[in-house]
Amino acid sequence: MKPLARTDLPRGFRFASIACGLKPKGALDLALFVSETPAQAALVLTRNRVRAAPLKVSREHVSRAASRMRAIVVNAGNANCCTGPEGLATARATASAVARAIGVAREQVLVASTGVIGVPLPRGTILSAIPALVRSTVGTPAAAQAAARAIMTTDTRPKTAFARCTLGGHEIRVFGVAKGAGMIHPNMATMLAFVFTDATISAGTLRRAVRHSVDRSFNRISVDGDTSTNDMVAVLANGAAQNPIIRDDSRDAIVFRHALAKVLLSLAEQIVRDGEGARRLVRVIVSGAQDDTSAGRIANTIATSLLVKTALAGGDPNWGRILAAAGRAGVAFDPERVDVRLAGTLVCRRGQAVPFNEAVLSRRMSVPKVTIEVGLHQGRARCEVLTCDLTEAYVRINASYRT
Amino acid sequence: MKPLARTDLPRGFRFASIACGLKPKGALDLALFVSETPAQAALVLTRNRVRAAPLKVSREHVSRAASRMRAIVVNAGNANCCTGPEGLATARATASAVARAIGVAREQVLVASTGVIGVPLPRGTILSAIPALVRSTVGTPAAAQAAARAIMTTDTRPKTAFARCTLGGHEIRVFGVAKGAGMIHPNMATMLAFVFTDATISAGTLRRAVRHSVDRSFNRISVDGDTSTNDMVAVLANGAAQNPIIRDDSRDAIVFRHALAKVLLSLAEQIVRDGEGARRLVRVIVSGAQDDTSAGRIANTIATSLLVKTALAGGDPNWGRILAAAGRAGVAFDPERVDVRLAGTLVCRRGQAVPFNEAVLSRRMSVPKVTIEVGLHQGRARCEVLTCDLTEAYVRINASYRT
Repeated sequence: MKPLARTDLPRGFRFASIACGLKPKGALDLALFVSETPAQAALVLTRNRVRAAPLKVSREHVSRAASRMRAIVVNAGNANCCTGPEGLATARATASAVARAIGVAREQVLVASTGVIGVPLPRGTILSAIPALVRSTVGTPAAAQAAARAIMTTDTRPKTAFARCTLGGHEIRVFGVAKGAGMIHPNMATMLAFVFTDATISAGTLRRAVRHSVDRSFNRISVDGDTSTNDMVAVLANGAAQNPIIRDDSRDAIVFRHALAKVLLSLAEQIVRDGEGARRLVRVIVSGAQDDTSAGRIANTIATSLLVKTALAGGDPNWGRILAAAGRAGVAFDPERVDVRLAGTLVCRRGQAVPFNEAVLSRRMSVPKVTIEVGLHQGRARCEVLTCDLTEAYVRINASYRT
Repeated sequence: MKPLARTDLPRGFRFASIACGLKPKGALDLALFVSETPAQAALVLTRNRVRAAPLKVSREHVSRAASRMRAIVVNAGNANCCTGPEGLATARATASAVARAIGVAREQVLVASTGVIGVPLPRGTILSAIPALVRSTVGTPAAAQAAARAIMTTDTRPKTAFARCTLGGHEIRVFGVAKGAGMIHPNMATMLAFVFTDATISAGTLRRAVRHSVDRSFNRISVDGDTSTNDMVAVLANGAAQNPIIRDDSRDAIVFRHALAKVLLSLAEQIVRDGEGARRLVRVIVSGAQDDTSAGRIANTIATSLLVKTALAGGDPNWGRILAAAGRAGVAFDPERVDVRLAGTLVCRRGQAVPFNEAVLSRRMSVPKVTIEVGLHQGRARCEVLTCDLTEAYVRINASYRT
């Protein structure tokens, strides 16, 4: 990927990051994203019943000031989750400190956290770093990249994506950063994504565009089936492009949604590709299902099956495990109509083995991108899910995350 | 465990095993269990939509001859699943060959298979071994043990269990063998269990006793969340103990059910303890749920969470992952009422961290048996699930099962 250019960044946004001491070895762990003018905000949160303090505070702030949002402050290294009233107070104090330093109201600031659960977030550590953080905000690609790095936990590389479109003669830019490598699963699993655009757009149109794009990107990826307490997608649109306001059902809305989806999908793919210990990006395509729900259930069950994911790690064309996973998805289908293709090779036709050269196919599966195609021949619905293989390295990383 | 004695085996059963060539290196791979007189049979099969040929044939046979069953023939090394009409014909031919050799009707013989999916089961290999197999049946502990060994796949040890009870002055014996180490999950995941008793019992009473015991044993264990296409629990009761017939709602029915449950629970525990790569048996106890379904869902979600299972492998008291897993179980509860105990130590009270000595607790968790207790304080329902830790060895075993 070519390096980020100044013209890839939407106008009117500034970025900063700092090492405040939550991560060891002086690594960047606090990021700030500022809009120079009030921005429309749309927020999608984890569906986990257990929600971290910053999510509660951000939800509250969006409900009060969705069209006047000015900043997002994010720490990595501590999730501020299961931390009780003290945790809530820390999240509020963080938003307040940022608000004070940039001269806005507290509810114009969103807060996000990622890291270990159940450990109090040291308030002083964060608050004392905020003045310097705010002073250092700039609109440069380097600052945006550094902020993307500051929100990482087990990620091995920062994740950024951008897209452009033209509406009424005005160039619109969309830029996003994300973090996430484990605990990734439909419904926002330990994943943070912050997207910034200079589009002028109505609140409802932005909300629906975000919901639509999230359903087709972050809700279609899985690393380990675990969903987290802290996941958040936040999108800010500050109108600096001065385009005519984008409203629902317009051609502009479709063009904008396309650009937004492109950014979210790229971030989602980068997350799966960086799955803890993962060596392969695996696209699971289920077609011929009776309806979307059935297609989605089967695709997700295959994408999260340990036996399928370990077979993928070994480059093993063990299609029986794929069919067995489909069979336990809780969806009625006739196994004797099912076709399975691995890396483009038909291995099962109408529920029965098709002879293939095991050594050749195993080599074709031992590559960075593998496709699993399951044709049910029951109807016309289709679903695509991205996942990754499960390697010994995943276990190594997660057996000792805290220690 | 003390070695199996002749008096642990129910009267009127004989056992045999042979190496027919499905497994490499001349390992035992074909087992036969014979009742000397017609037995009542009860069968529980996988709920996977994809069902192997022997399951279809056994279901058919039980529906025709449930009270006259005479034998179970089991091969390991090949699942005879996704093998089409040829696979069905092979399962039928296997039952026929056994029936002919012992002089009974084909439908008096059950068939089971376990192993790789989608590879034709070589009919000749099996059929040519059957005469010698039938000739070698004896009622000795050594033969029973060898049969338990013959049905193994990735198991590291054979699994047997027995119990006794006295009904109307007659001693009743219950003896079972099982296999299973991976793909273990509620609803009969790649798990075979065959149980033999000399009790005299009515068909319905036996069926209900088996259903009841399976729900409290095999449906409460999980190794990797995958369920298989081949799982089967079959129970034969031949009446050789000459007790007065056991009927529903009698005291005898309760006593018998207790003995049967003891055998199934022991087999279930042995399976989890032998989970592929597992070092620890983990008991997940969810209490204070609003109803049984909620308790079961939360317990199962915790028991199958990769992040929880890898933390257990590392002896990491990462209770946040437990709470996060509970939170995505699809059950409403108030996180701020939840208590969590790890290996007996309270680590989370009312949704918040309780200070504990991490090094001490990590040592207490690095043992062969660990308990996770989650108290929801929402109601009175409770569920207990057995699982195991997820180690790098699990991945190693499953990345190369076929190769």
